[in-house]
Parts: sequence; C-alpha cells; structure tokens
Amino acid sequence: KFGLAEEEDQVGVTTGLAWTEVGGDLLQIEALRLPGKGRMKTTGKLGDVMKESIEAAASYVRSKAPDLGVKPTEFDKVDIHVHVPEGATPKDGPSAGIAMVTSIVSVLTGIPVRRDVAMTGEVTLRGNVLPIGGLKEKLLAALRGGIKTALIPKDNVKDLADIPDNVKDGLELIPVANVADVLKVVLTKQPEPIEWDEAQEEALARELSQGSDAAPSAPH
Amino acid sequence: KFGLAEEEDQVGVTTGLAWTEVGGDLLQIEALRLPGKGRMKTTGKLGDVMKESIEAAASYVRSKAPDLGVKPTEFDKVDIHVHVPEGATPKDGPSAGIAMVTSIVSVLTGIPVRRDVAMTGEVTLRGNVLPIGGLKEKLLAALRGGIKTALIPKDNVKDLADIPDNVKDGLELIPVANVADVLKVVLTKQPEPIEWDEAQEEALARELSQGSDAAPSAPH
Amino acid sequence: KFGLAEEEDQVGVTTGLAWTEVGGDLLQIEALRLPGKGRMKTTGKLGDVMKESIEAAASYVRSKAPDLGVKPTEFDKVDIHVHVPEGATPKDGPSAGIAMVTSIVSVLTGIPVRRDVAMTGEVTLRGNVLPIGGLKEKLLAALRGGIKTALIPKDNVKDLADIPDNVKDGLELIPVANVADVLKVVLTKQPEPIEWDEAQEEALARELSQGSDAAPSAPH
Amino acid sequence: KFGLAEEEDQVGVTTGLAWTEVGGDLLQIEALRLPGKGRMKTTGKLGDVMKESIEAAASYVRSKAPDLGVKPTEFDKVDIHVHVPEGATPKDGPSAGIAMVTSIVSVLTGIPVRRDVAMTGEVTLRGNVLPIGGLKEKLLAALRGGIKTALIPKDNVKDLADIPDNVKDGLELIPVANVADVLKVVLTKQPEPIEWDEAQEEALARELSQGSDAAPSAPH
Amino acid sequence: KFGLAEEEDQVGVTTGLAWTEVGGDLLQIEALRLPGKGRMKTTGKLGDVMKESIEAAASYVRSKAPDLGVKPTEFDKVDIHVHVPEGATPKDGPSAGIAMVTSIVSVLTGIPVRRDVAMTGEVTLRGNVLPIGGLKEKLLAALRGGIKTALIPKDNVKDLADIPDNVKDGLELIPVANVADVLKVVLTKQPEPIEWDEAQEEALARELSQGSDAAPSAPH
Amino acid sequence: KFGLAEEEDQVGVTTGLAWTEVGGDLLQIEALRLPGKGRMKTTGKLGDVMKESIEAAASYVRSKAPDLGVKPTEFDKVDIHVHVPEGATPKDGPSAGIAMVTSIVSVLTGIPVRRDVAMTGEVTLRGNVLPIGGLKEKLLAALRGGIKTALIPKDNVKDLADIPDNVKDGLELIPVANVADVLKVVLTKQPEPIEWDEAQEEALARELSQGSDAAPSAPH
Ligand SMILES: [Ca+2]
Ligand SMILES: [Ca+2]
Ligand SMILES: [Ca+2]
Ligand SMILES: [Ca+2]
Ligand SMILES: [Ca+2]
Ligand SMILES: [Ca+2]
Ligand SMILES: [Ca+2]
Ligand SMILES: [Ca+2]
Ligand SMILES: [Ca+2]
Ligand SMILES: [Ca+2]
Ligand SMILES: [Ca+2]
Ligand SMILES: [Ca+2]
Repeated sequence: KFGLAEEEDQVGVTTGLAWTEVGGDLLQIEALRLPGKGRMKTTGKLGDVMKESIEAAASYVRSKAPDLGVKPTEFDKVDIHVHVPEGATPKDGPSAGIAMVTSIVSVLTGIPVRRDVAMTGEVTLRGNVLPIGGLKEKLLAALRGGIKTALIPKDNVKDLADIPDNVKDGLELIPVANVADVLKVVLTKQPEPIEWDEAQEEALARELSQGSDAAPSAPH
Repeated sequence: KFGLAEEEDQVGVTTGLAWTEVGGDLLQIEALRLPGKGRMKTTGKLGDVMKESIEAAASYVRSKAPDLGVKPTEFDKVDIHVHVPEGATPKDGPSAGIAMVTSIVSVLTGIPVRRDVAMTGEVTLRGNVLPIGGLKEKLLAALRGGIKTALIPKDNVKDLADIPDNVKDGLELIPVANVADVLKVVLTKQPEPIEWDEAQEEALARELSQGSDAAPSAPH
Repeated sequence: KFGLAEEEDQVGVTTGLAWTEVGGDLLQIEALRLPGKGRMKTTGKLGDVMKESIEAAASYVRSKAPDLGVKPTEFDKVDIHVHVPEGATPKDGPSAGIAMVTSIVSVLTGIPVRRDVAMTGEVTLRGNVLPIGGLKEKLLAALRGGIKTALIPKDNVKDLADIPDNVKDGLELIPVANVADVLKVVLTKQPEPIEWDEAQEEALARELSQGSDAAPSAPH
Repeated sequence: KFGLAEEEDQVGVTTGLAWTEVGGDLLQIEALRLPGKGRMKTTGKLGDVMKESIEAAASYVRSKAPDLGVKPTEFDKVDIHVHVPEGATPKDGPSAGIAMVTSIVSVLTGIPVRRDVAMTGEVTLRGNVLPIGGLKEKLLAALRGGIKTALIPKDNVKDLADIPDNVKDGLELIPVANVADVLKVVLTKQPEPIEWDEAQEEALARELSQGSDAAPSAPH
Repeated sequence: KFGLAEEEDQVGVTTGLAWTEVGGDLLQIEALRLPGKGRMKTTGKLGDVMKESIEAAASYVRSKAPDLGVKPTEFDKVDIHVHVPEGATPKDGPSAGIAMVTSIVSVLTGIPVRRDVAMTGEVTLRGNVLPIGGLKEKLLAALRGGIKTALIPKDNVKDLADIPDNVKDGLELIPVANVADVLKVVLTKQPEPIEWDEAQEEALARELSQGSDAAPSAPH
Repeated sequence: KFGLAEEEDQVGVTTGLAWTEVGGDLLQIEALRLPGKGRMKTTGKLGDVMKESIEAAASYVRSKAPDLGVKPTEFDKVDIHVHVPEGATPKDGPSAGIAMVTSIVSVLTGIPVRRDVAMTGEVTLRGNVLPIGGLKEKLLAALRGGIKTALIPKDNVKDLADIPDNVKDGLELIPVANVADVLKVVLTKQPEPIEWDEAQEEALARELSQGSDAAPSAPH
C-alpha cells in the first residue's frame, strides 16, 4: 500500500515526494494532534535536515495561525507528532517541507488533505517554496504510485524540459511559489481566517470558559 | 522459557515476532503501568528504529484512547515502561510495532493478551499495518515456540507462497490491515469505547473527586 | 574485602554474581535511599545493559510496592542511588538483575539482606528470572569468596551437569523462577503486604500528617 | 530566487554574505518572532560557529533592548526562530553575525530591512564589527545577486585594493565599525529608544494590564 | 605551589593522592558550597570514573548527614562545586574517593582539613575504603610534596613490603578501613552528630524561621 | 583592532593572554550581564578546559560576592554571557582563568577594567593563581598588541630568565599569587565589600521592595 496513493482523503496525512535510499519515492507524512503542551515529536528514521524542515514548517504555521483559522494559544495545548513510515528506511533532505506544512495545517484545522495530490518543495520560514533536486525521479515515483496531481516548486519549472513526455502527460503539474499556493490546491476546503489580538483573547478567556467556538471569524 | 509461548494470558505481555542477532525470534513485549506523569521508558537494548516504533505505538493509542475505553487524561497520570527481555540481545526494526500497540492497550485497559498468539507488523501513526521482511524465519520461530496463531500484515499475504507447508499447517495465519484487526483477535475481551469531549470531562472533574468509574460509556 | 562475603547482614547490600573483565566475579550491589523526588542514580562504570537492568528492577519493585509493604507514594519522596564498587572495573550484562531487585527492596523496606547468599539471574519487568551465561565461572567465584548459598535461575539447572563436584558440594544451590523465590531466601525477614488503593490513600493523606505508620496492613 | 535579492523590504529577513560549500554566497537570514518564553531556535544546517554567532547576536540585542525601543521584559514573552534556507546546504562561520543582529532587531521592532543591502561581518558581544575572510568572493556573489549596497567591516577596507574594479563600481561599499553603523543603513526607519528602569517597569506592570503602548519613549 | 602541601588548614581543601598522566601525583581537591538547590558541579578535566566517585562520595555524605552534624534539608539549599586544579591535566580513577568525601564533609560542616595529611582510597556508598593501585608512586609523590601523614586503605597494607624504606621513614602511614577512620585523622575537629527525624524537623521549620542554630545536638 | 589593546576602559571586557592555533595571542574576554535566572552562557569556539575555567571563575566570584560588593541573591536574577571573539578561532586551556574572573567581577560590579593591562594565569576555586605555559609567546603577543602592563602568575617568575630583554623592558610585569592581587591592579576602582547574612537579607527583602541601594556596606 505504501508507494501507492491513499484510498481516501484524511486529516493529517500528506503525500510527499522525496529521496530515500531507493531513489525518488512517495512518502506518507502522518501528523497527529494530541492533548499536550506545545511539544513536537518526530519519528521515522529522519535525518537532521528533514527534522529541521519540520521545525521550520511548524514555526511557519504557528506564525500564520490566525490566517489559518487557528488560535495561537492552541499551540500550547497540543503536542504534534509527525511520523514518516516506513520506519526502517532512512529519509532526509528538505524537499518534503511543504508536505510537512500541509500535514500540520490539516491536523490543526481538521481539514482533510486530497489523497491524489503529491508535492515536493523546500519551505522557508516565510512560506516561500524553494526548488529541489531529483525532480524527474520524484515525478516518476508519483506516476508509479497512482498520483494524479503533483505540486512542484515554481523555480523547478525550468527543469521540466528534461522530464519524459509520458510523465508530463500522466500528471497534472502545478507550480507553487509559496504555501498559500499549496494549500489552495491540496486542502479539501479552505481554512477561514480569524481576527486575533492578544487583548481580545485575554478578554475572551475571562468571559468564556467552555465555549471554544466563540472566537470571531473574518469573512474569507 | 523465553522463545516459548507464555503459560497464561497476562496483562501487558504480548508476543512479537522480530529479527534479532539470531534471526527470526519470539520477543515477549512487557509493558508496565506505573503511577507517574506521562513518561515512556523503554529498555532491552533496543535500537533507534524499535524505540521510534514504540513512540508511534504510544501516540496512536493516545489518539484513540476514548475508542479503547481510556480517558485521555489518564495518560498524564501514568508512566509506561516497555521492556523487551533478554536484556543483552540487541533488537531493532519496526516489525514489533503492532505488538507494542497491543501491550500498551492491554496495560491501559487491564485486558489480558492471548498468550498463544504471536504477531508481526509495522504500525503507522494512523494504525495501518505495514508489511515486514523475514516472514519465513519469523513464522518458523513462532512454530518452534509453540505458538498456535500468528497475525501477519495483509500486504505480506503474497509472500506465503514461499512458506513451507508444515509451517502453514502448524499455524493459523491471520492477515491484518490495521490495529482494529489485531485487537479483535489478541485481546481476551474487547474494550468498550467511552464518550469523550473536553467540556464534559472538565465538568466531571469538578463534580467528582474520587469516583473514577463515573465516566459515561457508550454501548459497544 | 571485595571478592569476599560481607561480615554482617546489611540493608541495601546484595551480593551478585556477574561477569567483569576478570571473568566470573562477586559484585557487591550497594543501594542507598535518600530524601528526594523519585530519581535513580547509578554509578560504578556500568554498561548500558546493566543500567537498563537496574531500570527494569526499579519499575518491577515500584509496580509491586504494596505487596512489599511499601506505599507507592513513597517513591516520589526518595532518590535511590545504586552503586557497584570497584569503580574502575567495567561491569555489564543483565545477570545482576535479581540482585538489583533485592537491594532496592531492602533499602525501601529496611530489611537486611543475608550476607552469605549470592545470586545470579536476569529479571524481567514481571519478575520472572531468566537464565544467564557463564554459570560455572560465577559459581567458582562464589566459592572462592566464601559464599554458602547461591541462587541460580531455574532455567540454568540443566547446566549443572557441567559444574565440578567440589563446587556443587561447597555451595547450596537454590533454583529460582521469579523474584518471590529470591526474596523468600535472601531477606532476613519477609515484608508484610499493605492494602492499597488510591482513594484510601488520599483520605489518609488528609487525616494524618505525621503518622507514617498508620497505613493498614494485611496479615501475611 | 535564492542567490538573488528579495523583491520587497521585509521584517526579519536580512541578506548576509557568507561562505558555504559553493564559495561566497548570499544567505537570506530569516527570523520569526513567536509567542513563547525566551527560547531561541536555529535551523538550516548551521555549524557550531554560526550557531554561536546567533547566540552572541541575541545577547547583544537583549543587552541593548531599551536603546532599540524594545522592553527587556519582551524577551521573556517571545521565542525567536532563526532559519537560513537552503536547508540541505551546510553553512558555518561567524561572518553572518551582523546580519543575524539585523534580523533579530527587525523582528523585535517590526521595522523592515532594506532588501537591496547585503552585509558581512562578525559581531562581538559589545556590538563591534570584526573583519572577515573571503571578501572578494562574497562581493562577487553580492554583485551576481543584484545587490546594490554592501556593508563590510571597517577593518576589511585595507583588502579593497585586491577587489576588481567592476565590483567596486557595481556596488556601493559602506564600511561599518559597529552595529549602530549597520542599523543606520539597513533598517527602513530607525528605532526610537525608550527609557527603562526596573522600578518604573514594575510600577507600569501594576497600573496597566492591556495597554502595551504606554511605555514612555525618549526623543531620538 | 601545586604538588606541594598547602600552607594552612582550609575548609573544603583536601590533598588526594592519585594517578595523572605524569604518574603518582598530589591533587588538591577543592570544594565550594554555594547558595543553591542541591546540584553538584565538577570541573578539572575529570574522567567518568572520578566523576562517579564524587557522586558516590556525595550520596554517602548525604546519607550520613545527621551523624556529621548536618541537617539533610541543608542539601536542598546549597550547590556544591568540586574542582581539581590543574585544569589542563586529565585525571581519572576512583582513588581520590576518600579525599572527595573529606572535602564535601569539610565544606558542609565548616571544619578545616589538616593540610599536612594526604590520602588515597576508593570509597563505597557505605563508606568502606577499598584498596587502590600504584601505592608506591603515590607515596613517593607525597614525600616529594612535603606531606607528613598519608592515609592508605587497610587492604593495601600488604603492599607496604614493596615500598622503599626512606618513604616509610619519611611518612606516617595510617591504614583506614572506612570513612570514620579518615575523618578522625584529617578534620581539625570532629563534627557533632545531631538528632534527626522528619517530624521533628517539620515542627522546627514551623516554629523557627531564622534561628538556624536551634537544632538539638546529641553529645558526642 | 583585535590583537591590539582596547581604546577605552570598559565594563566586562578583559584582555587575556592565551594560546590559540596561531600561538600566543591576546584574547578579549567579553562578559555581558542580562536579566535572567542564574545561567551562564559561553561562546567563541571554546574547548572544554576553557569552559571549565569559566565555571570555576564563576563559582569563585559567587563564593566571594559580599567581599566584592555583590549580594549573593543577585546571581539568581541575572544571566551572564561570556564570549571570546574571534568566533572561528579555536581557544582552549585554563590560562585565561584570571581574565575570566575579572570580566565577571567587572560586569557584576559595574567597575571598568583597565584596557592597557593583559593577564595570564589559571585560577583555582579558592582564587589562587597557578602557573601557565608558553609565557614567552604570550608576552611577545602582549608587546605586539600595545599592552603596557602584564600580570603573570607568581610561580612563573622563575621563567623570566628566558624572556628577551626587550620584552621585559617594554612591559611592566606584575606577579600575582591570587585574585585579590589581580583585581587591585586591573579594576579602575576597588569594589566595596558589603555585610551579608541571610537573616538580614530576608528582613531587608520584606521591608524594601524597590530600594536596591539600601544594603549596608562596610568601609573599605
Ligand atoms: Ca516505499
Ligand atoms: Ca531532498
Ligand atoms: Ca530468545
Ligand atoms: Ca524488523
Ligand atoms: Ca573483585
Ligand atoms: Ca551477564
Ligand atoms: Ca544559493
Ligand atoms: Ca565566515
Ligand atoms: Ca602537579
Ligand atoms: Ca586511581
Ligand atoms: Ca587575533
Ligand atoms: Ca593555556
């Protein structure tokens, strides 16, 4: 089943395209949200660069929380566990960055991720998407795995000249320049931004104790 | 006694099939629940991949706690120690994942584990069971050890063609695709899910101080 | 004096039989109980496997505390330091496990350990005793050291055929299958179990502040 | 886009000139300010010397907080994450020190950084700028990347004799001796110092609870 | 001055005899007591075995605190720093154990240590003194350094046959079997034991707030 | 500018003479005092021995705080960062010990350090100054760097015979036996001791809340 597309859209599960010891490969990025206190756990034999890409993804999401409909205070109440099966296969590199962002956003918003979309791209702390290497091998893996749509960094478009025609015919390729471009395609619905300032939140915190749906939300 | 099936069904003890330095082997996965504050301890000369498989198992169980009849708040009041004897033998790999899940569920629910069932399979954060290597050697070890029933990953069924007939005759082989399939077979009774939402729990927490059996449980 | 039996029964000091760089050797396992907050400290140039055997021993004792006459809350008020002299000699392996259990039980109950008894055996988290290697060399060391009685794992009884007659004549050899078998022999008196449930304890905690002997104890 | 100047002035993003495995290179130093409790996180495959340069930069900024219009108590309420894309490229050395200072000041004051200015220089704990190596390669990288203005350590001015004329013609080179020289050029507006003494702050803290703009600021 | 005896009796400074890279050597063991919360710090390029010998020394002293006139609660209010100059010389081994005990006792009781006494011996958690190696080289170093009296482990007395006569003539050699033997010689006055039980202490704690000299002391 | 004497007397900046990879060298030891909670941070590619010399220096200063006019409670309210530029140059050894003490004292008392004085010497936990190696190379570096006065360990005076005359003519050399000798020369004014006992402090703490100058100071 792994190396193949998921059977249904799920919350917290994103398909990344990355390098492992077998070359270009599909990775299922799994995120879980647990009651906790702001800790990140990462498992799956991940190298230091991939671990740092998860830290960058998490900080980016935290800095954009209100735009994503998530209250910043939420982060202090949950632990997030990001796991990349298959646990015995070493994985590394920054190219799963935008998939990491997607899984974290999905798990915090509760919005499922499209199972037929795969993606590759390093993410910066500001949400820019940087080009990656091994585009051809990654797209071949996507095709083999039954993927229909692949998001690739805008700065890799110049490399498409080297990609075989059957790959370009078999996959819808969507260039992305930043995380907003990614989420627009891959989330099954878009998050609604909320208004957020700290004074307001403190007031809310005092008035309400149980009503967690009462935060004002801006139209989208 | 080790390398042989247990003599009675016990809480927290599951028989895994994994690789050690001597090839396919039976591992007794022992879990203990101690008064504590949410810490995991792992011992038994475990490699990093096996340790990560325990972390994934623990997060999976925590995320499914109400379905398993366990209040999520329970996790903050206990420490869980997972030990794999024989302490001088190095053990590694993800293939004891579903056995780790089983021991943790057993110790949290108090439901014993069937001593005549062994199992092998990597577990993902969502509870999917992934295929493993060395199926033949693991099943031979199960047979030698007096096991009657072995759970194997559904995605390993294709490998059964290579397994000798005496093994397939001597063992009941049950393919499993996810943790639910595993627990249905291996627990001596099924856990009853509880209703759970945080507001409800906070109310309960205020009303009751000692009565730990008062949480409403849904019919099963 | 080391390599020889102790001169009097002491609290917290157990004689283990294990391997060091000089072969089979007597080890004095020293445990101290200090006012603290539930920490374990281990010293004596111990390898990772021996350190893990101490962790398993400690968790086992903690899980059986009421059966041993020790209130589980006691563990949060003490630190336990386990030291194995001679500090420059590397020591490893799981075979001092039951000696570790004995020192920890002794220090928590205040019951002295018989100085003329040595023991070898790995302990599991459930208190089972597993077989060890190097039985002959360990028993020779016991004999040299003036030991009268040696506890050996039940599953090593089959190895006694290879042990020289003078060793078998000079030592009383007692096979043990679990920790209960060990403590029955080696403690100078048996601990009295206490009744224990959390609600009861919380009530006690409120009523009494100084009277630490007031916990009800079951007849033995 | 990386290796090229940014498209607009941004808060927290500074262009450093440093050495990577490909020689002189432009580095985008990204800083984020997150609600938190005074922790620093650094990512981007940074070597120990570069990590220490970030620690020195952070302590320098913290020691000069009131001069920069930032209340020292602010530091206990935020976490700062400094990331240097591209995550797979090893980076090291102290020469991005003044760029680190700039990103941290920008993110704390909310003042954007000029996107057409690049800089190189080690920073000391007192804010002095120390000379760096590889000036020629760094300036060539700046020119290639579309930079207009480059800040260089005053103590590197003697090395300009060896720099090709086209580089000196294509770049405005500004020597800097300390952090004040740097910020004067690179911030899009200058921070306004605030008065600060602890007694005053404690009084303020008691009087006001929400009004975070009420701290008196000295004329600039 | 190092490698020579101290010029006056000091609190917290004990002369140990140990091995360094130059062979047998005098070590000045310096201990400081600082306001704190129960932490130990050790410096001086100490190997793991020497660090563990300090941990054993500290636990021993803590377990015997009332016998040494020190209230156990004292340990939670101080940090102890043990330093062994010369900081660039690697030092290891357990043979400075009794000197470590002496410095810690001195610093906690405020009783000076005799500057003309050197000592060597491993200490166990129960305060026994174990034999050490290199006795001849250590005693030669003591003689060279102007030491008058050297404490040696009782179990090393058998090795005195191999010590040159001029060493045995120039030094008073005192065999010691346990820490009590050591302190009797090396402290400039003996500590007075105090009565200690927890209930008593809690009562005291409530009655008195400043009067730290009010604890009842038993006659000596 | 580095490798040269400072241009004005500063708080927290001391000139040490030590070994780096280029031989004898001037090191500017920079210390900063930040609002905090008793933590030390050290940066500048320092080896373990130099880091330990900073720990010893800090403990020494803390133990002598009242003699230096610093209330011991002050240490719990500040973090101290010690940095040694140039960040890419490895530095090690204990010989900057007395310079570390000086920078820490300066930053805690607010008294500037004479910029024309350099110093070398290991410091012990009691403030003794121990001899160092490489005296000639260090003094040559001092001369090259424009230093007028160099403090050297008293126990290195015997090595002056080997120092060229031009060095001895160009530098005022002052032998120091302990930290008091050092501070007398290098601080631009002497700290005034304060009276200190804990009861007094607790009383003060209750009476005064803001008045931090009210602690009684003894005449000097
Ligand atoms: Ca795969
Ligand atoms: Ca990659
Ligand atoms: Ca086995
Ligand atoms: Ca495996
Ligand atoms: Ca021995
Ligand atoms: Ca062993
Ligand atoms: Ca680049
Ligand atoms: Ca550099
Ligand atoms: Ca010496
Ligand atoms: Ca030694
Ligand atoms: Ca220099
Ligand atoms: Ca040195």
